[in-house]
Amino acid sequence: MSVTCDAFLGGRVHLFQPLKGYRAGVDPVLLAASVEAQAGDTVLDLGCGAGAISLCLSARVPGLSITGVERQAEYAALARRNAAEAGAALTVVESDLTALPDAVRGTSFNHVVTNPPYFLEKSGTAAADRGRAVALAEETPLDTWLDVATRRLAPGGWLWLVHRADRLRDVLASLDDRMGSIRVRPVLPRAHRDATLILVRARKGGRSPLRLLPPIVMHQGASHAADDTYMPRVEAVLRDAAPLGWDDQIPGV
Amino acid sequence: MSVTCDAFLGGRVHLFQPLKGYRAGVDPVLLAASVEAQAGDTVLDLGCGAGAISLCLSARVPGLSITGVERQAEYAALARRNAAEAGAALTVVESDLTALPDAVRGTSFNHVVTNPPYFLEKSGTAAADRGRAVALAEETPLDTWLDVATRRLAPGGWLWLVHRADRLRDVLASLDDRMGSIRVRPVLPRAHRDATLILVRARKGGRSPLRLLPPIVMHQGASHAADDTYMPRVEAVLRDAAPLGWDDQIPGV
Repeated sequence: MSVTCDAFLGGRVHLFQPLKGYRAGVDPVLLAASVEAQAGDTVLDLGCGAGAISLCLSARVPGLSITGVERQAEYAALARRNAAEAGAALTVVESDLTALPDAVRGTSFNHVVTNPPYFLEKSGTAAADRGRAVALAEETPLDTWLDVATRRLAPGGWLWLVHRADRLRDVLASLDDRMGSIRVRPVLPRAHRDATLILVRARKGGRSPLRLLPPIVMHQGASHAADDTYMPRVEAVLRDAAPLGWDDQIPGV
Repeated sequence: MSVTCDAFLGGRVHLFQPLKGYRAGVDPVLLAASVEAQAGDTVLDLGCGAGAISLCLSARVPGLSITGVERQAEYAALARRNAAEAGAALTVVESDLTALPDAVRGTSFNHVVTNPPYFLEKSGTAAADRGRAVALAEETPLDTWLDVATRRLAPGGWLWLVHRADRLRDVLASLDDRMGSIRVRPVLPRAHRDATLILVRARKGGRSPLRLLPPIVMHQGASHAADDTYMPRVEAVLRDAAPLGWDDQIPGV
């Protein structure tokens, strides 16, 4: 398998990942920036792939203890390699999330972070690249995925999730009564475009009403041609490892 | 019952409504501006109150045939009076929506518009003002409300709904498999505040993916003190009866 080494967070994180398989983009970086964890917390990264979320998170928040679950051997191996080179406290477990080993199934975590597989339209890519197809395709239904996430959370623990915006209904439907205090943050490529992603935060046992936050806008300008510069806040997240808070309502996007 | 006469849409619509009961604000005006109906279409306004949605809609789109259902006699009477004074083609049926008369139950509509009751926190107001309490409280569960809306739509018909943003999960969960092509438009009081309302459009039998649209921002400025002016687009809707489209992605909020 051909791999590339790609830099994230302005060079703070390097990730070996398959040249042609599923490749981390901004989605895991935005999610990692959104996780409100602190030193000593335990984190479960469900479907960790090559480790993008975990490595970006541990680069920003030192002292975490992270467990990554990945069912594809090649990605699990890359995640181990990436963690070792970064010196990150990431333990990678190669497992299907519906058949977790006892060591994981017997543990409750303060946080679950996850970028569940995006549905892959039926197309030639599925057959041409098995690794990418499995990473993107939803062989494990979303409600199973989020049920496992919920069960692995300690009471009061936090779920942090990024998914495609068009799965908003499915994501909310898959968060059952055990989860509450839901916050949804739309991510728009530009101020006047539909959301492409949603960042979701929920708390096990939470009771606060759902909040639909103002969007994160990625780029300035009305189109790629007009202006492809990142908004200052996004630039700070992607290049300077700034956090992407959930409580700020202060102007200054 | 004391009533006031209030002007909407820059004086195009006048509405007699109770001085102390449930009173129409911007919510029905925004919803009416969002309905993509044309002359000849039939419209069902579920829980029409004093008729704010129907009258604002018929002021913008001539030639509609609108049926309003309202279970509180005082509001139904006001809706009839308001329709008569406006010369609007609004027929008001006094009925609980779970016990619609045969004439309504036997009809399919091109559009259903609705501003379902907002959940009323347990408080003294409930007892002090029965009319407002019934209008705001959710004595009819949301899923029943939207089930009735769905059943009354013709195949390919459109549902247009405004609700509190914190009910996003409940609204999406109550739109079952008969409804699709869902679009959600957050309404933010200011650019950096949480959404307070959601405008939702869905189609009976629709198959397009859900879309989460860029928000409508109501006011300029970071706070009431800083600047309470409406954004130009909102000003056009509220004062000039402009439509609030679902497809525009052109800068110019």
